[in-house]
Amino acid sequence: MTLEKSIRHSTLGMLRIPNFSDIESASQRIAPYVTRTPLLRSPILDGLAGAPVWLKAENLQLTGAFKLRGAFNALLTLDEETRSRGVIAYSTGNHGQAIAYAANRLGIQATVIMPADAPKTKMDGVRRYGAIVHQYDRHTESREEIGMQILQRTGATLIPPGDQPDVIAGQGTVVFEAWNQLQEEQRPTIRKILVPCGGGGLAAGTCIAMSSLAKETEIFAVEPFGFDDTVMSLASGKREKIIGNNQTLCDALMASIPAELPFAVNSAYLTGAVAVTDDEVKQAIRFAIDTLRLVIEPGGIVALAAILARKIQLNGEPALVVLSGGNIDTDILSSILAT
Amino acid sequence: MTLEKSIRHSTLGMLRIPNFSDIESASQRIAPYVTRTPLLRSPILDGLAGAPVWLKAENLQLTGAFKLRGAFNALLTLDEETRSRGVIAYSTGNHGQAIAYAANRLGIQATVIMPADAPKTKMDGVRRYGAIVHQYDRHTESREEIGMQILQRTGATLIPPGDQPDVIAGQGTVVFEAWNQLQEEQRPTIRKILVPCGGGGLAAGTCIAMSSLAKETEIFAVEPFGFDDTVMSLASGKREKIIGNNQTLCDALMASIPAELPFAVNSAYLTGAVAVTDDEVKQAIRFAIDTLRLVIEPGGIVALAAILARKIQLNGEPALVVLSGGNIDTDILSSILAT
Repeated sequence: MTLEKSIRHSTLGMLRIPNFSDIESASQRIAPYVTRTPLLRSPILDGLAGAPVWLKAENLQLTGAFKLRGAFNALLTLDEETRSRGVIAYSTGNHGQAIAYAANRLGIQATVIMPADAPKTKMDGVRRYGAIVHQYDRHTESREEIGMQILQRTGATLIPPGDQPDVIAGQGTVVFEAWNQLQEEQRPTIRKILVPCGGGGLAAGTCIAMSSLAKETEIFAVEPFGFDDTVMSLASGKREKIIGNNQTLCDALMASIPAELPFAVNSAYLTGAVAVTDDEVKQAIRFAIDTLRLVIEPGGIVALAAILARKIQLNGEPALVVLSGGNIDTDILSSILAT
Repeated sequence: MTLEKSIRHSTLGMLRIPNFSDIESASQRIAPYVTRTPLLRSPILDGLAGAPVWLKAENLQLTGAFKLRGAFNALLTLDEETRSRGVIAYSTGNHGQAIAYAANRLGIQATVIMPADAPKTKMDGVRRYGAIVHQYDRHTESREEIGMQILQRTGATLIPPGDQPDVIAGQGTVVFEAWNQLQEEQRPTIRKILVPCGGGGLAAGTCIAMSSLAKETEIFAVEPFGFDDTVMSLASGKREKIIGNNQTLCDALMASIPAELPFAVNSAYLTGAVAVTDDEVKQAIRFAIDTLRLVIEPGGIVALAAILARKIQLNGEPALVVLSGGNIDTDILSSILAT
């Protein structure tokens, strides 16, 4: 199905699928507030992959993850009166930190609803940026219910991590920016783009960007095993929910079902999705420390892990990989380095 | 003493002190071969430092250290016939890796003379890039003698890590590039530049660059305790040699006496030099992992450590700091993270 057809057929109610010009606008809107992260290469990685691999290092983004782009784009489009009532986000961490930081920067009160077992570095980050943290038990409480109660009490605006057009347009600026960082003659050589995938917002933003920049480029979403709902959903053609109490190192990618709006895009446009194991993730993290000199969190490295583990074959052709975040607890990093 | 005066008074024999236009030429010459490393900011660092701090991340340079710039600039200026006889370097690692990589890239045979106790990651790097490694015992053998023997046998060219004008001009491109990455209105706000200092090549290149770009900017060299020969030499006004068998985590900065050519520049131009302890270095490395999401080696982080440990006071004014390399053995990094 084409992207346009998917948009026509989607039953998304009030939600509008953003288009390429929304990404261009987002890019200009957020530019004063976010880091233009570097696009890096490593000769050792190229050797291992058997092809040139461009790395968009969003672990070096302010707050340590690409989520800041969607957060700023969403908050900057709110009017003054809406801003004055505050914003709410639920998040295992990166979206929450992003909302906390962006809200603080723009003088908006933020409340972030986080599972009690979220990484300490992320919870500290949310607090450091001045947001109120509301903890809940991932197994017995519903973050949506908690969120609705706060919304009703305060009149604040909920900024979801995926099902929000301005957030998706913001996430689309990652690959849009990487594309602009490539030299003009390099762009047509890129055959594949790989992005980490939780709810699917980054993948959707990437698909929308590339549908205008270079339609023929293949785009792959990469998930952790146990939370490969997009793999399953692409196979069946509808949003599949993960059943059971699965575990993964990739706390940032523990979405159990694709977000609705991103999936409307991703189902139409993604070339495919693959899943990587925790061991593959750990190996990739060690590789990034040893060779790239970058700290990447588990959920942020799955796309690179898919290349190193040969889950996606590059066949000698250049690829662009998003390293989406770097917020890992030091004790977990230590234990990964020790194994 | 002014830079010009120092140059007139120097007794450097055949060695020519490079000037600003040598740095401009070097920058163009090496551009196709090196990474334009990112200039990063961290709101958390700014908060701790009480001032905006710009970080030039040369740990993300190819081969993991700024040394690649001087290596390429030196090798690219050799004529074909000289190249055909090969090159030699002695190095604890970063200069060696740089020469090995650059020589390999340009089709030149390289031999690198390394102490047997050099970090494994650096020795592996030199070998990976196809150079011959000649190990020696740091305590009983002279690297200069070994080098001279090889030179006499092969007719190869020695590329020293510091006492070489093209190398110094190459190192000068680090801050020259950072300056160009700043927006025009930001440049005059920078009051201090801090760089790691071993033999002094990076500091000298920085001094030469800034003497044309913004003369009034203060430049500080930062050394590890136990190898603070530049601190001592600036105090006495002549090149002082470290006595005794000192230890430091900063393997890249174990020069026991300032290199002659860099010191002729540094003694005239540096605002000052300070030393940091191993504990301050470890704290800075942990900070870089936790907050900057960057892997920096001990010798590469001393300038940042000097700010975090308040060895240099910024007084609320913006500073530029060079993170000069990232080549640290994983087991050492693990043990630093564990403490």
